[in-house]
Formats: sequence, C-alpha cells, structure tokens
Amino acid sequence: MIFLRDNILLREPLRPEHIKPRLLGHWGTCPGITLVYAGLDKLVCETGTPTMLVTGPGHGAPANHASLWLEGTHADLDPALTRDTAGLTELVRRFSWPGGFPSHLSPQVPGVIHEGGELGYALATATGAALDHPDLLVACLVGDGEAETGPTAAAWAASRYLDPVHDGAVLPILHVNGYKIASPTQSGAADDEDLLSLYTGHGWAPRIVDVRGDYHDPELSPDARMAEALSWAHSRIRQVQEAARNGADANVPRWPMLVLRSRKGWGLPAESGGAPLEDTVRAHQVPLPHAADDAAELADLEQWLRSYRPDELFGADGVPAPDILACCPTGDLRLGANPVTDGGRLRRPLPLPDVRPFAVDVPEPGGARAGATPTAGPWLAALLRETETRRDFRIMCPDELESNKLGAVLEVTGRAWQPEPPVAAAHLARDGRVMEVLSEHNCQGWLQGYLLTGRHGLFPCYEAFVSIVDGMTNQYAKFLKVAAEVPWRHPVASLNYLLTSEGWRQEHNGYSHQGPGFINMMLTKKASVARVYLPPDANTLLATLEHCLDSVDRINVVVAGKNDGPQWLDLDDALAHCRAGAGVWEWAGTEARHGDGPSADDSPTGSPGARRPHPDVVLACAGNIPTVETLAAAEMLRRDAPGLRVRVTNVVDLLTLPPAERHPHGLPDAEFEKCFGGAGVPVVFDFHGYPSAVHECLHGRPDASRFHVKGYIEEGTTTTPYDLLASNGVSRHDIAVEALRRAEGWSTRGGELADRYARERDDILVELRRTGQDPVAISEWTWDGGR
Amino acid sequence: MIFLRDNILLREPLRPEHIKPRLLGHWGTCPGITLVYAGLDKLVCETGTPTMLVTGPGHGAPANHASLWLEGTHADLDPALTRDTAGLTELVRRFSWPGGFPSHLSPQVPGVIHEGGELGYALATATGAALDHPDLLVACLVGDGEAETGPTAAAWAASRYLDPVHDGAVLPILHVNGYKIASPTQSGAADDEDLLSLYTGHGWAPRIVDVRGDYHDPELSPDARMAEALSWAHSRIRQVQEAARNGADANVPRWPMLVLRSRKGWGLPAESGGAPLEDTVRAHQVPLPHAADDAAELADLEQWLRSYRPDELFGADGVPAPDILACCPTGDLRLGANPVTDGGRLRRPLPLPDVRPFAVDVPEPGGARAGATPTAGPWLAALLRETETRRDFRIMCPDELESNKLGAVLEVTGRAWQPEPPVAAAHLARDGRVMEVLSEHNCQGWLQGYLLTGRHGLFPCYEAFVSIVDGMTNQYAKFLKVAAEVPWRHPVASLNYLLTSEGWRQEHNGYSHQGPGFINMMLTKKASVARVYLPPDANTLLATLEHCLDSVDRINVVVAGKNDGPQWLDLDDALAHCRAGAGVWEWAGTEARHGDGPSADDSPTGSPGARRPHPDVVLACAGNIPTVETLAAAEMLRRDAPGLRVRVTNVVDLLTLPPAERHPHGLPDAEFEKCFGGAGVPVVFDFHGYPSAVHECLHGRPDASRFHVKGYIEEGTTTTPYDLLASNGVSRHDIAVEALRRAEGWSTRGGELADRYARERDDILVELRRTGQDPVAISEWTWDGGR
Repeated sequence: MIFLRDNILLREPLRPEHIKPRLLGHWGTCPGITLVYAGLDKLVCETGTPTMLVTGPGHGAPANHASLWLEGTHADLDPALTRDTAGLTELVRRFSWPGGFPSHLSPQVPGVIHEGGELGYALATATGAALDHPDLLVACLVGDGEAETGPTAAAWAASRYLDPVHDGAVLPILHVNGYKIASPTQSGAADDEDLLSLYTGHGWAPRIVDVRGDYHDPELSPDARMAEALSWAHSRIRQVQEAARNGADANVPRWPMLVLRSRKGWGLPAESGGAPLEDTVRAHQVPLPHAADDAAELADLEQWLRSYRPDELFGADGVPAPDILACCPTGDLRLGANPVTDGGRLRRPLPLPDVRPFAVDVPEPGGARAGATPTAGPWLAALLRETETRRDFRIMCPDELESNKLGAVLEVTGRAWQPEPPVAAAHLARDGRVMEVLSEHNCQGWLQGYLLTGRHGLFPCYEAFVSIVDGMTNQYAKFLKVAAEVPWRHPVASLNYLLTSEGWRQEHNGYSHQGPGFINMMLTKKASVARVYLPPDANTLLATLEHCLDSVDRINVVVAGKNDGPQWLDLDDALAHCRAGAGVWEWAGTEARHGDGPSADDSPTGSPGARRPHPDVVLACAGNIPTVETLAAAEMLRRDAPGLRVRVTNVVDLLTLPPAERHPHGLPDAEFEKCFGGAGVPVVFDFHGYPSAVHECLHGRPDASRFHVKGYIEEGTTTTPYDLLASNGVSRHDIAVEALRRAEGWSTRGGELADRYARERDDILVELRRTGQDPVAISEWTWDGGR
Repeated sequence: MIFLRDNILLREPLRPEHIKPRLLGHWGTCPGITLVYAGLDKLVCETGTPTMLVTGPGHGAPANHASLWLEGTHADLDPALTRDTAGLTELVRRFSWPGGFPSHLSPQVPGVIHEGGELGYALATATGAALDHPDLLVACLVGDGEAETGPTAAAWAASRYLDPVHDGAVLPILHVNGYKIASPTQSGAADDEDLLSLYTGHGWAPRIVDVRGDYHDPELSPDARMAEALSWAHSRIRQVQEAARNGADANVPRWPMLVLRSRKGWGLPAESGGAPLEDTVRAHQVPLPHAADDAAELADLEQWLRSYRPDELFGADGVPAPDILACCPTGDLRLGANPVTDGGRLRRPLPLPDVRPFAVDVPEPGGARAGATPTAGPWLAALLRETETRRDFRIMCPDELESNKLGAVLEVTGRAWQPEPPVAAAHLARDGRVMEVLSEHNCQGWLQGYLLTGRHGLFPCYEAFVSIVDGMTNQYAKFLKVAAEVPWRHPVASLNYLLTSEGWRQEHNGYSHQGPGFINMMLTKKASVARVYLPPDANTLLATLEHCLDSVDRINVVVAGKNDGPQWLDLDDALAHCRAGAGVWEWAGTEARHGDGPSADDSPTGSPGARRPHPDVVLACAGNIPTVETLAAAEMLRRDAPGLRVRVTNVVDLLTLPPAERHPHGLPDAEFEKCFGGAGVPVVFDFHGYPSAVHECLHGRPDASRFHVKGYIEEGTTTTPYDLLASNGVSRHDIAVEALRRAEGWSTRGGELADRYARERDDILVELRRTGQDPVAISEWTWDGGR
C-alpha cells in the first residue's frame, strides 16, 4: 500500500511505473499489527468471543486495511473493495492517495474508534469501550513510542476501575519494537524484569511474547507464540469474569497484558544500500524511499515484497487462498464488523427525565436563589436511576463531583472502584457508574471510548483544568467531523462537558484555577461539531443539559456555576431563552419606560436628522457571574441615571454571535440587531471568559468595534469574588462606568456618575482588604425586582 | 494560617474574632510537607548538600510558608515577616487574604519554581532543575492525587535521562496519604509490594517510609524514619554520582525514591462533631469550617492547635526556640534561599553566534530556495557548541528533531540517554544536551525547570501536537506573569517554541497532524508574556530565533516551515522586517506601477468626490505556506489584471495586528494603515492558522470587517499540498478569486477572471486525484521576479 499503484500481486517484474509518485506511510509498526490481528482472528474463531481492536499506532493503517480486506469487511461497506485482484488493487491504490484513504487509521476505516495519529489515547479509549459491555474483549495495541506519553502512562490504572461483573475486558498489548521515529524507546531499553515489574506494579498480570528470533524456526514461530499468549490471556480473562460473576472471587482482578517484542519493520531486508534497514529507525516510515528512481532500491523492494510469496497467498483471480480465508472470523465476529465499533448503530436515545420537577421556582426574575449544578445534580441522579438496568450512561470526572456540587448522583450509584474501600471512604462501588480519577486524560479517553461504542456520558470538570485535554478534544472533534462524512457510520451521542468551579469563584485556589480558554479552543472547531453554552442560572442549565444529552455528533461545552445565586428565569422562560440562544431581558432594561420618543438625553447623537439610535447602550452578558454583575449594573443605572435607555441582553449560546454564514447558530441580522441594536449603538459585553472569544465571534458583524467586551484578562489570585471581578474590570461598577462612558451623549452628565461609581469601587477594594471579605451589599446583593 | 487572623501563638483563649472571616486553604497535605521539609533541613545541615524542594501539592502552601519563615528566608525578602510575634502574625494573616499570599504556592513564595495548582508537573519540573546542576539535590514531593495524572506518570522516565556525571539528582518523594479531594487514591489502594514493583519497573530504587503508626512512640518516630530514609537516599545518590564521575561505574543508575505513607491531615483531632476527621477526605481542605460560628468546632480547633504546644516552640517574643532554629540550614543552603530557585540571578545571556554566516543568500526576492528549519539547524548547532562548557542551553523535543530537519544539532551533541544504546541507534550520549522523549509533557516540564533555574532552551515540536501541553503553558504563563510582579525575582530566559512540521505539509500523516490552535491559546495570555511569530522564510526564522533566545520572561511561539521553498528576504531585509513585525513588500505588489493617479479601473468607488482608496485590494499573509500562495496569487493578478492595484503585506509578528492599546506590539494606526490601507480597502488575509486568531486580533481596528481572512478551517486528510490548500480555500487561486471579488469596482471585469481561476483550480484538483501528485506548475512554482 505504501509503495504500489499497480502490479499489486507481482504477476510481472516490478517496474518504476508500478510505484506511486508520492510514497507516504509508515511501515515500521505494521508487521506487529498484522501479527496481533491474525492472532486475534484465530482466538475469535476458536472461542467465538466478540472482540474489537483499538490500534494505538494508527500510522500502521496498512496492516489494518489488509486484514479488513481479507475478512471481507471492506467489501461489505464498499463494493469496489472486493476480495479479488480488482478490489485489492483499488484498496492499495487508494491508500495515501488524494481522495482515498488517509495514511493513518481514521473513521473511514471499519472497526476503528480511535485514529491513533496523536499518540497516547488508545488504552483509555479501549477501557471506555469495554465498560458496560460484559461480553466484549477489547484488545488494545500500544506502541512503545506511545507508551512514553503521559496519557498512556496514566491509562494503565484501568486495572483498578474495570468491573469484572458488568464490564468487558481490556487486553493491552504493548508492542515493543525498540524505536520511535528517530531514537530508541524507554520500553525497548528496559529489560524484561523491569517491564514485568512495571506492569505488575500497575496491577496487571504481564507476559512477554518475544518474536525476534529466527522466524522460520517452527519452534519459535511468532504465530504460535502469539496464539499461545492470547489463549492464556483469554482463559485468564474468562476465569476472572466467571469467578466474579459467580460470586466466587471478590478480589481485585489482575487482568492479563502482553508485551510483544518484535523487530521494527520486521520482514524488511536486513540492509539496503549498504546500511541496516530492518530493526532500525530507517524502518519507521518509508524504508525504500527512492524505489521509483533507484534501480537497486527497486530491486530491494521487489525482493522484499516477493518474500511474502504472493503467488502462494492468492489465486489467479487475486482471491486469497482458501486456507487463509478460513483463518478469518465471519459476520459480526470479524474485528472490523463488530457492531460496537459503529456505536451509533447501538445507541438508544436516553430516557431523559422530565426537567420540570427539578426546576427552581422563580416567581419573578431575581425572586429566588439557587445553585445551578446543585439543581442539575438531582436531575442527573434521576437519569442515572432511569439507566440503571440499561447501563448506558456514565459520568467521568476528575474527582470533582462533590466539589462541583453534583454529589446527588452518588445517592444513586457509586464511584467505580475495584479495590477494598478504605474505612473512611464513601460511595465506592465495584459496579459504580460514575468514575472519578485524578486524570482528565483518563476521563476524556474513557468517555470517548464509551460514546463511540454506542453509549452516553457527561464530563463535569473544573473549567480551568479541562485545557489539559485540549489535544484530545482536538482529535475527537476531527474524528466526529470525518465520521459524519462516512456514509455507513451512525450518529453517536454527543460528548458533553459540564465546566464548573469556574475561575470567578475559585476562592480556595486562586490564579492557577482560573482559565476559561477551553471556550477559545472549542471555537476553532468545525461549526458542525462545536457548541458552547453559558446558561446564566439553574433552570437554563437544566434546559441546556436536556438539550445536550439528547443531541448527537457534537461536542457540547456547558459552562455553569455551582454557587448559590439569584435566579432569573422560570422553567418556561428558560426553555424559550435557551431555544433562542440569546435574547433581550426587557424586565432588566429601561427601554420600556422611555417608549419610542427621544430620551431625556441632553445631547442628540448621530448626524442631524438621523434617527436616534435606540437604546443608548446595550448591556450584554454571557455566563453566570457576568449576568449577576450586569444586572447589578443595570439596577444602578436605572436608579442613578433614569434618563439612560438601557437594553439588557443575555447570551446562552455563544455561537449565536458569529454571522449566520459562519455558524449555523449565528443569529440572522434582524435578530442580532434586536439583541444588540444596530450600527452605532454601543454594547458593553460582560463575558465569562477571555474577551477574545467574543471578539472573534463578532468578526464580520457590521460595526463590530461598538462592542466593548469585558472578561477575564488573567488578573487573579486568592481573593474575594468582588476583588477578582474588579481586577479584571468586570465588576458591576466597571460595567456601569463603561456604559456611561460609551453611551452616546452621556459623556458629560454620565461622567460625574461614572466617577462616583469608580470611587465606590475603590472604596470597596480598600474595605475588603481590611476586613478580608466583600461588603454585605455586594455579597448578598439581590435584584430589586426592577421596581 | 488557614484559620487565624490573631492570637497566633494562642497566648489567650481562642475566640471567634481570632478566626478569619473566610477560611480558605488545604490542610490535608500540609503535615507531610512539613515532615519532608524538616527532614531535608536536617540532611542539609548534616551534609551541606545544596538542595531545593519542588512541592507538587502546592495547595499545602502553609507548610512551606512556615518553614520559610522559620529558616528566615521570608524575613530576608520582606522586612514585615520577621521571626517574632509581629512577623508571624503578619505571615499568618496574609495567607489567603486579599492582597496577601494566595492559598497555593506561587512565585511570591521564596524557593518556589512550581506552583502546584494544576497537578501533574512537579516531577518533570524537578528533573529540569537538576539538569546541568551536578551538585544540586532536587527533592520533589508528588502527591498521590497528582500521581494519577498522565504527566506525572510519564515523568518517572527521568531515571533514564539524568546523567550522573553532569546532572544533579532528583529525589522523588511520593506522598501517599490515601485520598484526593473526595475519594481514595490509586497509590493508597496499592499495597507496598505493588508500589515497590511499580517504581522499580520505572527504573528507581524505591523505599517505603510509613509514618502512620503511633507518633508518640520514639521507636516509630516519623522524624527518625524520614531522617533515616533521606540519609539512605543521599548516600545512594552520592555513591551513584561518585562512581560515575570517577568512571568506576558505567551502568544505568538506579536512583533512590521514597514512598511516604502518612495519614491525611495528620495531627487533626480523630473526630469532630461525631464524625471522623483525621485520615479522611474531610481533612482535605478546611477541616473545621465553622470554627467562627460553632463553639464546639472552635473548641476542637483550639485543642488541635494547642496540641502543637506553641508555648514550648516559641519564646515570649514569638521567636522560635533556639533548638528549633538550630535545625535550619543557613544562608544559601536554606531551601528557600537556594539561588537556583530564583534562576534569573544565575542566568547569563547566551553567546548567540552571529546569524550572518548561516543566512541564505537571497540575491532578489524569490531568487533562492531553502528550508527554514534546515537553515536554523546549523546555527543552533553552533550555539550548542558555544555552550558546550557552560552547559546552559538545551533542546527538548518529542523525538522530532530529525523529522523537523534540525538534525544538524546532533553533530554537536547527542540525545541524552543513559541506557546502553541499541546497535542501530545513533547520536545517543549520556551527556547529550538535546533531549528526545515521546512526551510533550516531559519536554515542557523539563524545559520549565531548566529555565526557572537560570538556563536557556528551545522546544521544537510538531505544531499540531503542542496543544498537548496547553494546560502546562497556561500555568507557566501565569507563573511568568506573577514572577515579573515580584520585586526580588530576576528575569528568566524566555520559553521558546519552534513549531514546525505544520499541517500544510503533513503528507505522511494527514488530518490528525493538522492543528494550528496553539496560536489561539497563546493569544489568550497576558500581553506582557505572549509572543507569536510566523517568519515566512529561512532568514526571517534566523532573525526571529536570535531575538527570542535573547529575550526574557516571555513565551515565544515561532511557527516555521521545514520544507524547501522560495526565499524572499536577504538577511538585512529579514532583520528589518522582523524588527517592524509587519510590512509592505512593495516588490510584490503593483502600486508602484500605477503611481498616485487613478487606476485604469472602470468604476470609481466610494461616494462622489471621495478620495479613491488605494490600493484596490491588499493581499496580506502570515506564515510560510500562505506567503507562497499569496505571492503566487499576486503574480497571477499582475499578469492577468494589470489594472488592479495590489498591495502585498507580510506579517511576522501576529501581535502587530491588535490595536496598540490592547497589545504593546500593536501597530500604531498610521503604521497599520500603511500596511493594510484605510477604512474601505478590502484585505484578503491568507493566514497560517485558524482565521479566528486574526479575527480576534483585529477587533477594535476601524472597519475590521474589510478583512477577509482565509486559513485552516479543519478540512484535511492525507493528500497533496495543493489539494489541502484548496480544501481550506487558501490556495493561490482561492486568494486571487477572493481578491477579484472583493476589490471594489472589479466585480464585473474581475468576475470573468475569477471564474477562470476557479476553473483552473478545479481542473488541478481533478488532475492531482488522477496522478496522485500536484502539477509541476504548482509544486515547482517560483516567483517570476516581479517582471
């Protein structure tokens, strides 16, 4: 696949024109993948165990393609990839060819739930796939390069979380061929003793499979060694599961894992052009890169390819020999055809509980206090109860469920945990459906594997630390984007983040715990994939979560508060507001008081005769805390500047801001103008995150520079909530000052008031530094009801 | 510190008014930190070993503060923190108080090079600090929560990279107190055998120090146990180093590490309010949160605090008892006063080689071909040669040096690697000063530790995968921001990323290897910290690297190509262009041909009488590949639309784009207009990364919506370079089409030409899918010299 465009079966001498013009791919890891794939095929044929393979070294895609073609999965999904010369030629040509298969594994490849381009995530993904699939065996190849990554290193902890009763098994196969791109690997340098010690310490039962010997010696046959090892692993897995399922063994299982030692690029000529080739870094990518131009390399290539004896492997028509075909499982037992690998086929919509009984009663805006995540917790608990038998909804969280005030879910299910619980620990259960581990990488990987095999989930996380998985989310967004373009793939449940414990209320922690940058990262993703929601209170959070958990093929980022605070919308208004994505809160502004006539302003604006722009200023806000500050500012202005026409607009769905041609959620121009006024109307936008996120969304909106965005500007430490807001210029006083300074015609009259607000702000800052806390008027502020 | 604002030494009964109004902090991990700090003090006093402590659980800051106050470092740096009642009261009050010390470790705290807020990076940071500091002992506390993170799990590999001859030692101390925030830890659940097995497998010599017994039994004294273990570790380290330094032992060292088992919140009352307290998750944060309001809790608090017997520890004046003070090292041997922990004090400017001999000879724009990183490689090699004795410059790279075409550096120094090199491996050396590991987390952590202890470095990385360290970079930017505000901290060398193997030329890999989002992340950082440079060719890369390696206190992101391509600027022009940050390339546009008069355009633009805006369109570009495409488009338009006034502007420094009030590099309005024309002039901006990065920079520039930004829009796969550009709408044809459609007055005449270009583009796409490669006219395009 890496080399040939024609003469695939070498029915004639190899000539330069048979070679592709661009040689793109990676040979080094392929032989190991083929060995493992074939070994698994044999195991499946013998045991009938439903099995899938997660391939960490995804750049070994040709090995997977070959096996998929051999087992007939390719032909099932694409009639051009038949099991004959024509189909094989088409497959080989397509590889790394414009418009064909990419050089790495990808969603276009059957059986794949993990691309393996950015290394590190195979093992966690495999673990997620095994959860709640009790009969499934998830084999997972981990390259020795990948094994150096942090996410992989953390993922070995799976042994302490997999429940032998309700979950399937993960069989990790560490493929040690000794080299990464250009240098030796840590695993390659470790002796057997260290490797066995390491993986024993991680809680596994490791076994070494060394196939570096003389391959032609039947005593040392790699296939026989692999088969023996897989058979041992399978028996051990079944023993563990049967003992646990019969109640015969309550010990923490020590699952098998294999260390496969092979030569990098195994099967290559030992040398070419006078330099070693097999078992060196030269084998990593394209081992004979000048085959089209260099006669000696072409001869080496031909000799190498013929060493596989294609004439014995294929009949005259290119159909593989019957004894080879007989090695492949059939139907859904084929690794590429296991239904879980196209998880959308199995996905059932969640039985979402009605949100109404969980909603906060909000008789009028500001007329109740509640916390958003504490309100969502019981609803999520109800969802966990509804799915108790189905076991297709899980929550993954980096040990922050209780800190994020979602502890209600623990009344329904425990934290998954296999070891003996310590005396003082609560809410641990071997069959728990919430998973807490202090590794965002594991949470993300587990959830990806869980979703892509047909289930649902939620990832609550401290907002500041979710950036730890930026790289994984990047790659997952790519997977979703491509998967949606593959005709045979079925939609999967969305990946839902609930980001809370946001920086504005991280008093126990301070600067390191402030970081809203995940929003910016998400905004770089495809419009078809990315969604960012900032519900301002509890009922809007309920409405948002209900929507997200019912959606497919998206990454939904929901940012919500956990602290007690004023509630703005009753459930019906919340549902309507979330459907719209953004809207004017008329009860919070003063436009209705002024009617359509000119305001009491002393200086008309615009050019003579122009229609005076309404309102004088728009106070926009997105996010829980900014909404409170904006409404407090609106209240101050209503009281102190009664002549000022203020419109208050709240944004739940950040992607209503871009022009409609850039994002499907972008408000049409007329709707946008309803929310934010037309050209010339100043908007003071109090934003939860970095101002840049709003800036980039607004590009292309007419007169975007009228938006003055306030947000987190990386000023932070351990201090009071008000001090933090003021440091970043987003306190109620800052908003009111900015509004007065920006409102046209108010620079003089408003200036005095603005100065007063600025002085008030500074007085508060002095006071809170003295007392160590915010003044009661700030910390216990409640909306005056608009009266 | 967590509780008291007064009566610190309990000279009177504890009353509610002595309690802080907001109780913020984390007690659980503090006792272990204190034990380790005191143990290290004893070791230093006995051995005189220069030692520092990297504290992973930075939320245990009160423990560090206490020891720093005791050893007198605090008083040295702040006269208010004297070693008496007044100083102690001030210290205790300041903790978690607005305007005081944050609740976590931070750059404000002496001896600290690692904040420990976002967990996972302590061990890699400690490793970086030890490199090239042969006499230094870097003790590193790793919490058992932190030990679950991927970055920590990967960092144990340090044992295979630390050179016993040239590097100092890292002594990891895994602090197992059994619980993270709310649930048990993996390490806590593992038995001693598994822990010993795990860390032996990682290449260390582990020893368990269990202090959970009866503390008052002298036989079980925690201090004695810790002292004995530290003494063992120290001896072993010295043996390893002496053997290696005398040439007596060439084996890979097995460095000591400790596992400290303690009770979480050790020293707390066993229970409070009828529920267990010590050794439970309740000990994690504030164990008696209602002490100010609840008399029983206040009594518990008083009893607990008195259990430390303050009257014995302090004299009447609050000065610690002489026997306690005698336990502290003095001068620079104090852990908080080790000069390496304020690395800027030790930093010497790099002996940067003159770039001139390394520059590409560019007789005229486009008159040479070269690769950017292949040009920079020899210059970096020269720098490594210049620093061979000083050993204060290193390159950390995730095994991509050669792939990134920086292999020249390996002619000067090897890759650091302690194990026996495999037969086929080259360029490995125990004293190597480039470090390759397939873990971006390790590269980043090592480099942070290296820089913060006074040295210099470079982190070359595939651009797409540097997002793996988004979280770490976030935190490091915070560290730099705060450190610059601390009066006694000295500037450290900047952290320099060289991002290459960019997505536009990732033919071997495809979609997973395309991701320019690190730029967007960097744009969220403080203007005082973040820099983003996109040198368009080899000489501009040299100029940029020279600037970055000479700078301090910044994070410089440099994005450059590795492939052969046209060169635009000779060295002098490159230096000038990089100094300006952005500039018009007059030789590439057509304005000079047209003079100041009206163009040959057929339809005047703007309102009658208005001065015709010049030029008709600006072609702006930033980045290596976009510059090529933009110049190719400019050439096409010069040839096919001679009447069109085109200005070509290249941007090296992305932060010239924001308004000057938002970023210090922002071009003043007049300069901006010189580059991009004034309001109404359309700009077609071909950008290396996501268009949103340019969008957000432009917010606030007048009439920003005239900028039509083209960039990476997440369309990608394994294909030809042109196909990838066209998929994302940034090919030369797309740029030329956009220019014609946007240039005012050209919609009719230009429309026909635009249609022709679009057809050409589509023909090329058909052709390359047939042949598997780009047409020669595209792949071998060279600038026509503007003639």
